[in-house]
Amino acid sequence: MTRIVGLCGSLRAQSWNRKLLNAFVEALPETATYSEADYADVPHFNADLVAESGTPDPVEALNAQIAAAEAIVIATPEYNYSVPGVLKNAIDWVSRAPEKPFAGKPVLILTASVSALGGVRAQYHLRQILVFLEAHALNRPEIFLSQAPSRFDEAGKLTDPVARDLLAQAGLALTGAVSR
Amino acid sequence: MTRIVGLCGSLRAQSWNRKLLNAFVEALPETATYSEADYADVPHFNADLVAESGTPDPVEALNAQIAAAEAIVIATPEYNYSVPGVLKNAIDWVSRAPEKPFAGKPVLILTASVSALGGVRAQYHLRQILVFLEAHALNRPEIFLSQAPSRFDEAGKLTDPVARDLLAQAGLALTGAVSR
Amino acid sequence: MTRIVGLCGSLRAQSWNRKLLNAFVEALPETATYSEADYADVPHFNADLVAESGTPDPVEALNAQIAAAEAIVIATPEYNYSVPGVLKNAIDWVSRAPEKPFAGKPVLILTASVSALGGVRAQYHLRQILVFLEAHALNRPEIFLSQAPSRFDEAGKLTDPVARDLLAQAGLALTGAVSR
Amino acid sequence: MTRIVGLCGSLRAQSWNRKLLNAFVEALPETATYSEADYADVPHFNADLVAESGTPDPVEALNAQIAAAEAIVIATPEYNYSVPGVLKNAIDWVSRAPEKPFAGKPVLILTASVSALGGVRAQYHLRQILVFLEAHALNRPEIFLSQAPSRFDEAGKLTDPVARDLLAQAGLALTGAVSR
Repeated sequence: MTRIVGLCGSLRAQSWNRKLLNAFVEALPETATYSEADYADVPHFNADLVAESGTPDPVEALNAQIAAAEAIVIATPEYNYSVPGVLKNAIDWVSRAPEKPFAGKPVLILTASVSALGGVRAQYHLRQILVFLEAHALNRPEIFLSQAPSRFDEAGKLTDPVARDLLAQAGLALTGAVSR
Repeated sequence: MTRIVGLCGSLRAQSWNRKLLNAFVEALPETATYSEADYADVPHFNADLVAESGTPDPVEALNAQIAAAEAIVIATPEYNYSVPGVLKNAIDWVSRAPEKPFAGKPVLILTASVSALGGVRAQYHLRQILVFLEAHALNRPEIFLSQAPSRFDEAGKLTDPVARDLLAQAGLALTGAVSR
Repeated sequence: MTRIVGLCGSLRAQSWNRKLLNAFVEALPETATYSEADYADVPHFNADLVAESGTPDPVEALNAQIAAAEAIVIATPEYNYSVPGVLKNAIDWVSRAPEKPFAGKPVLILTASVSALGGVRAQYHLRQILVFLEAHALNRPEIFLSQAPSRFDEAGKLTDPVARDLLAQAGLALTGAVSR
Repeated sequence: MTRIVGLCGSLRAQSWNRKLLNAFVEALPETATYSEADYADVPHFNADLVAESGTPDPVEALNAQIAAAEAIVIATPEYNYSVPGVLKNAIDWVSRAPEKPFAGKPVLILTASVSALGGVRAQYHLRQILVFLEAHALNRPEIFLSQAPSRFDEAGKLTDPVARDLLAQAGLALTGAVSR
């Protein structure tokens, strides 16, 4: 069994990236287990905070959860042509963990957007961040889900057959990257 | 008088970027006034929060402060080869303000780092973000303060004469960009 | 009259970016004149070449042509997620000209692509290059012409009304940026 | 034996990146063989050229040489905050080869510069290009040789012990990445 952890770059309950991540998880092969990283309670990064009272509990929990995984999926919107601050703030905390929770692990990046570009600009900023973290962002497949509202039904289920197929391939690519 | 607002990308009290920003402010010409944007109390961005209870007060205050300025200076560390999440989160909020607080304004970027590279990687991510915000990042001077600890005295005062001169030029460039 | 010089990032006679540039030129206001920079005969950049026999004639001609303009338009495909080498090579030569032909001038970037993303990845690399050149890439409009083959007729004329309108606005934005 | 092919991003005979690449090759373990890709005679990329007379011979030779290697090292200067056009032009040709000469291979990036920043800005543009090529840029070590003239002797030999050690590690990392 391959242990996968996911991060969703939007905290909004009905975000398109939340729905995209759900669709990815549904399409995972049976050889994978999934857990979602919850970083909503992680505070703004501030080294003074650590000096005063140690690493905050939600950060310790986040570090442990990512460290326990063998592969990582990040589904994120593009905000202002880059990665959402809230997701980057969580990464900024995790990057300080001495066990390097991201290092050496394959990472799949998914972006969804209501626009035609599908969030592509966020992906290359995230790839640069992952270099520092010593993670291995998959080269393929690259998934930019454009015009997201047209691809889900009212229950939030991904109905676009091409996208569904691509997500299934992505799940196989991510688990396959672990076994190599 | 030119109204300048500053953002410091680190919340740490003794951060090198805080000291760099202080040195920049000291070197401003007398024709400039300065105020600092405080975003420590801005919550994690979440559109559901706005839908439930409107724009949070600290965000409204931040929007108003940046909107009232004619020019912007951002002093920021590089975290994980990009912009700190906490700074980006503040920008993500401000970008939603209908008055577009950044639009059409010159922006000076300063980065300081203990390393030899001076935070250069964060600057080009920030520049891409500023394209979306319709701000005008100055092309020159570009200020990457490397090996920061060697350039300040114990009181936190910038002692490096080249850097001091560059900051003075940067202040003139920023105020000059407003009058054009 | 505003003197505009154009560079096309593809040397292919029937390239989509060639056609897009033609459509841009047709839509220019009457207050603008246009000339196209020809860099097909510029050699591979090699500083030894200059040391041996001086700046090559095609480079001198290119430098002079760009230096004589007040504003610049670059229409370019995206090759391998970045700027075409052949266009970058021309820029590498021009960047050595002591008169700094790009400095202080507004630049409009256009990209066309057969794909859905319209060449967006090339634009931000080009923007970073323009920082060094001290040019001013316009923030708006950003023009990424996706699915290019569907937007031109057999004679190579742009038929998409939204794109035509956007190009006309872009022409006004570029000439307007000169007068400021 | 691991077959490594190298590309030097500068055509200048005495370039710092040429010297850096030489030093890297000298430090390679005995289990590696090295050949250098020669792309000086590759023409400007133009798809019309291929349509008229097929793929040019120097391109075919370059494709074959890279395809025959198991790992790739690229030593390149930073020109105008990005990759040299001449190197990118060679990559633009190779990217069209149906056998995908870069795909699946580890790539080590080296940059040298006379400045303090060591060419760092070129590296992340090159990394983005390598994503398209489906190559695997090593996360570590990252080698930015700053102030290059101070680190070589008159014969062009790298004398800086830290840099020499780093290059030796880099050679092991590159050959090690092949066996995985």
